[in-house]
Amino acid sequence: MSDVYGVILAGGIGARMGNKQFLELGGRPILIHTLEKFVLHPGFQGILVLTPQAWMSYTRDIIHRYLPSAEGIEVLQGGETRNETVMNAIRYIEKTGRLTDETIIVTHDSVRPFVTHRIIEENIQAAKRCGACDTVIPATDTIVESREGGCITSIPNRSYMYQGQTPQSFAAKKLKDTYEALSGQEREILTDACKIMVLQGEKVELVQGEVFNIKITYPYDVTVAQALLGMEI
Amino acid sequence: MSDVYGVILAGGIGARMGNKQFLELGGRPILIHTLEKFVLHPGFQGILVLTPQAWMSYTRDIIHRYLPSAEGIEVLQGGETRNETVMNAIRYIEKTGRLTDETIIVTHDSVRPFVTHRIIEENIQAAKRCGACDTVIPATDTIVESREGGCITSIPNRSYMYQGQTPQSFAAKKLKDTYEALSGQEREILTDACKIMVLQGEKVELVQGEVFNIKITYPYDVTVAQALLGMEI
Repeated sequence: MSDVYGVILAGGIGARMGNKQFLELGGRPILIHTLEKFVLHPGFQGILVLTPQAWMSYTRDIIHRYLPSAEGIEVLQGGETRNETVMNAIRYIEKTGRLTDETIIVTHDSVRPFVTHRIIEENIQAAKRCGACDTVIPATDTIVESREGGCITSIPNRSYMYQGQTPQSFAAKKLKDTYEALSGQEREILTDACKIMVLQGEKVELVQGEVFNIKITYPYDVTVAQALLGMEI
Repeated sequence: MSDVYGVILAGGIGARMGNKQFLELGGRPILIHTLEKFVLHPGFQGILVLTPQAWMSYTRDIIHRYLPSAEGIEVLQGGETRNETVMNAIRYIEKTGRLTDETIIVTHDSVRPFVTHRIIEENIQAAKRCGACDTVIPATDTIVESREGGCITSIPNRSYMYQGQTPQSFAAKKLKDTYEALSGQEREILTDACKIMVLQGEKVELVQGEVFNIKITYPYDVTVAQALLGMEI
């Protein structure tokens, strides 16, 4: 039986809801587009959707309406931060008695509806093999560093630079143990779960993303997403 | 009289022409959209368009067809590299006897047609003030470093990271002097003109770009650009 869970991050306590997970794209909420990619992948034991408390009931409603035959989807409350939201998912798995060293979570932004079957599959394989992975694309723009925002501090070698997308996937127990060993201050700084693993000296494999696996945050992104919906991708 | 030149980079010797500068967008070649933004800015003494030798005549034709009343546009041959192409533009200004310490070049990708009047204006002001500037936006994705492409090496603090766009603008004589002082090997490594200035300890100011100031390289970008053309930006 599979020990792999999809974890869809759709907001936590205090999230500004500036994201567009409930906005409609081609007649369906963006969250539903995203969720469907996970539902259609046969590798998941369950799919956990984490939302602000106030939106849990609405989220359950739209899942019921748009994906009536989907099984194994649970809507859970998000935490105070992105990492706490991921921890809420892991704690839920733990409560069901299914958290083992083999449990894998594939965490994904609810507002990245163009994730593909291949990306999900490679995440599962890489996390099983290595314990952690991050979905990235080679940086398309030159990356520039500025420590104070006024002038350039350095321009790193572009061939070393990648843009992080999601999914980010983890051996769930290892991530939880590592996270719980952090101080409160470290937790505030390490907002990216992959960064936690990297700083602990753990290997985090790269999985190749796609240019079109965009995060829909700004009105600009919605226009782009509407165009992408009409494309063969 | 203005000492400011627009320098539109539309390819050099050996360029794969993988870029889309001659592709039509809304009935006009992308290069024309881009060029028009410079033509409509009153601050330029001249606008230099650098293309592969084989495309110079075609480029002159389309400029004549789509921008018949525009003055001060010169089509020149690009160089072997991006920096050599920029140097060809500066050498042209020098040959006309107009290269002084005050001469500013605003270099811009021919395939970034959504550059704005504000971005161009702020480039001119910053280059006059500081000698060099780069147009950037705060990194929207987490930036990930991998030295060998298999695993993450580090995840730099995202608040320090920016994505480089164009224009990049320079005091032309200073850039030329700095470039000509480099060894052949340094020239091969330093493919970004701003990086040359940074490594020489020169200040390079940041100018705020726009998310929609995209570079049209892949078919994906063409779809996005077509959507953007229909937007109010």
